[in-house]
Amino acid sequence: MIDWDPDDFRRAGHALVDLLADRLKTLPDGPVWQPVPDAERAALRTDALRDTPTGPDALLDEFTARVMPHPMGNGHPAFFGWVNSSPHPAGVLGEFAAAAMGPSTAGGDQSGVHLEYGVVGQLADLVGYPAGAGLLVSGGSTASLTALAAARHAAALADGWDDRTEGLSDRPRLVVYASGETHSCVRKSAELLGLGGVRVVPGEGRFDPAALRAAVAADRAAGLRPFAVAASAGTVNTGLVDPLTELADVCAEEGLWLHVDGAYGAFGRLDPELADAYAGLERADSLALDPHKWPGVPVGCGAVLVRDPEILRATFSAVAPYLRNEPGEGFGGGTWLAELGFEQSRPFRALPAWMTLRAMGRDGLTELVVRHRRQARELAASLSELPDFTVAAEPGLSVVCFRHEPAGIPPREVDELNRLLPARLQTLGTVFLTGTELDGRPVLRVCVLHRDTGPAHLARIPGAVREAAATLRRE
Amino acid sequence: MIDWDPDDFRRAGHALVDLLADRLKTLPDGPVWQPVPDAERAALRTDALRDTPTGPDALLDEFTARVMPHPMGNGHPAFFGWVNSSPHPAGVLGEFAAAAMGPSTAGGDQSGVHLEYGVVGQLADLVGYPAGAGLLVSGGSTASLTALAAARHAAALADGWDDRTEGLSDRPRLVVYASGETHSCVRKSAELLGLGGVRVVPGEGRFDPAALRAAVAADRAAGLRPFAVAASAGTVNTGLVDPLTELADVCAEEGLWLHVDGAYGAFGRLDPELADAYAGLERADSLALDPHKWPGVPVGCGAVLVRDPEILRATFSAVAPYLRNEPGEGFGGGTWLAELGFEQSRPFRALPAWMTLRAMGRDGLTELVVRHRRQARELAASLSELPDFTVAAEPGLSVVCFRHEPAGIPPREVDELNRLLPARLQTLGTVFLTGTELDGRPVLRVCVLHRDTGPAHLARIPGAVREAAATLRRE
Ligand SMILES: Cc1ncc(COP(=O)(O)O)c(C=O)c1O
Ligand SMILES: Cc1ncc(COP(=O)(O)O)c(C=O)c1O
Repeated sequence: MIDWDPDDFRRAGHALVDLLADRLKTLPDGPVWQPVPDAERAALRTDALRDTPTGPDALLDEFTARVMPHPMGNGHPAFFGWVNSSPHPAGVLGEFAAAAMGPSTAGGDQSGVHLEYGVVGQLADLVGYPAGAGLLVSGGSTASLTALAAARHAAALADGWDDRTEGLSDRPRLVVYASGETHSCVRKSAELLGLGGVRVVPGEGRFDPAALRAAVAADRAAGLRPFAVAASAGTVNTGLVDPLTELADVCAEEGLWLHVDGAYGAFGRLDPELADAYAGLERADSLALDPHKWPGVPVGCGAVLVRDPEILRATFSAVAPYLRNEPGEGFGGGTWLAELGFEQSRPFRALPAWMTLRAMGRDGLTELVVRHRRQARELAASLSELPDFTVAAEPGLSVVCFRHEPAGIPPREVDELNRLLPARLQTLGTVFLTGTELDGRPVLRVCVLHRDTGPAHLARIPGAVREAAATLRRE
Repeated sequence: MIDWDPDDFRRAGHALVDLLADRLKTLPDGPVWQPVPDAERAALRTDALRDTPTGPDALLDEFTARVMPHPMGNGHPAFFGWVNSSPHPAGVLGEFAAAAMGPSTAGGDQSGVHLEYGVVGQLADLVGYPAGAGLLVSGGSTASLTALAAARHAAALADGWDDRTEGLSDRPRLVVYASGETHSCVRKSAELLGLGGVRVVPGEGRFDPAALRAAVAADRAAGLRPFAVAASAGTVNTGLVDPLTELADVCAEEGLWLHVDGAYGAFGRLDPELADAYAGLERADSLALDPHKWPGVPVGCGAVLVRDPEILRATFSAVAPYLRNEPGEGFGGGTWLAELGFEQSRPFRALPAWMTLRAMGRDGLTELVVRHRRQARELAASLSELPDFTVAAEPGLSVVCFRHEPAGIPPREVDELNRLLPARLQTLGTVFLTGTELDGRPVLRVCVLHRDTGPAHLARIPGAVREAAATLRRE
């Protein structure tokens, strides 16, 4: 038996729905995360190909026993790590339906393609960006890569050459500017594009426009070719929004492409209190934002929006004879989505995104952003009242960075303690938080991004940290 | 109401399972594909963000009315376009479960990460490739991009410089060689990497090792830096497998990285009759293969395998303070999958792949590949017996290229007819096939890749082509 008939699918599907619904119900009562037992970890890593087919029942049993019990933890409302939300149930059903329809959304006359245009428009509308074109991609990293590839192509064309056919050798080095707080995906993008990484402009916290201007001047003087600035609308460390208007001014004067990484923070613009902080976003040449972060679309959905309606196609379109379609009739014809980005086969990302946006609505998303931001400020306020905690930075968006500084411990040991605390907290399982560095010193970092996080979950934090610290100090 | 509670999810989930199972049942009775009505197309493309949340019932109704009726067509057993299979029901459930668990598989101690190692090992085992490392990515294009990025890094290191920090300017142009039949994703990869596209080695059909040697010598003499060869194990046009052993010999002598694009065709190795054709595959430095093609994992799952266990990490790892984890305890520690490739957040691709591989088993996959290949040969044989059809190339793997040449039509009009036929056939809806060019002339192309394709579906082809041709000639 290779194949499952529709009734096998129906039966297994119903069983799986119950499994997943039960899981959703009981999840908040268990530990946020727990280690995978050694034997099971090894067994999963070396799981061997079977010769004979496994039927639906045995397969679900194996999934239930071996895979489902060992999640990342981000489904739990006391998970505060990195920038990981939990998937919205509507988005989960959207992924299911997308997989069942199973198209490649490379292009053509099908709902998967048309709906992607709709979703791109909705995302642009949501964050107030005047997109000329856009595309759903696998995440924020790919979104920034796509945007910077377009920026590179635009710069080459402006200088009278074509990076697509000529390559980068024998050309002045193209320089993209980032701040110390820009996400590492921008550096990875610049490396992949053959640019040799990013120029990190000096300065603490927000991107410093004056320092940018100086760096551009120095690079020009050295014969390099400044071409793009990668600013942040919501840094991963502290949720800072860079001074976008001032950066847009520098870019306009210097002829640089302004890319804004809003993977996490673009949605912060929904909070009316923050409208001013985002002024200038609409002047960006490109914007990356992640439906799979704050809105809760399941992981695998980022978006890139660009002002120039033609630049994505100019950067990526390569239509071979086996892909070409005659306009006029039939499935193909016209521009394909695969011509706007790097991927040929493309999953139906628009469906989970659309279902999530529908399920939340602009009002629901706004409420969520406002609430998470308020929760972060309240957490910071409550921590700052405790003698053994210090808030390490003004909370930005839904992030709080803080330190645990119990009395009577020498400063150097406080650093060591805060460096070790995240892993110990994770092991204890009451809350999940991660660490980072601010001004070179280790801090604890909480990012509120789960729809069901309530006061009780946040209230667990100080006690959990103290308990973790106590176990560490006993060792 | 922003949120759905677990019982909303349960109820909507069961309803969706029935919808999708019913769809699976009735799909083969309808047209393969039909155009989206103009009004609905426009409505999907401009679908606006709603302010207020949409509840589960209304959302499923809208999906059922507007999205589900307009698929790509690849779910139908008479779909023979490009290289698109239909999703295996086990893979569909795997996507559903993956989205519900909702992790990012960037790294850490969770089943999603461990299982990816298992699946990578299974894929290597399946096609007989001695992978030192590997990664699941969004598709075959991304797999080849990842492999060529690694090849570029290896070449730079071998020459004593670092492309990641220095960029490509001021360095000799790096050249990657392709045949005229290499998939366009290799060109797109080389463009994105800043290499200025690929050097197409002259020759018809299979990659010509002697012509490769000559091209490499000419480029070296011109001061360029040959560094990689992109061969095909299963070309998209005709399913050809390049002479891998001879290409591996050239690469060994010339110090070139051998990348093999087996996105479609690597699975052809499962057919015992073809074992010889794949000799040399195990000598490749990297291999791209697409679980979302022949095996029927839902779209969004490619794989890259590399021989050198360290090269992916050397090429891609960039660990910022907010990503760093202490080894020893807790969730993180050790190498993350995000360090082996470009993406930071990573969907749980291993689960649908694992469930599909389990549901098929090696035996089931082998049976499928053997059957599809036999069906392609039988189709070619039956077409060649018809007076008004000619087979345009020896069928390779599961691909047949042919022309319709009705009596009494001048040669130039035959070309025009065959150029127009695919779109007309698509519109008629009995079979879905696409076109390509062989030796500069348009041909019709059938790729058998659906688990349920039977003799009756293939038997539709000549009649459908004649009918389409008749309607075209009447115009
Ligand atoms: C500010 C910022 N930019 C980019 C990224 C990368 O996005 P992704 O993980 O979706 O690739 C992240 C991830 O957390 C982020 O927080
Ligand atoms: C031979 C070959 N290589 C690469 C690709 C690209 O793979 P993907 O569409 O998964 O990006 C294809 C797609 O059909 C292919 O047939």
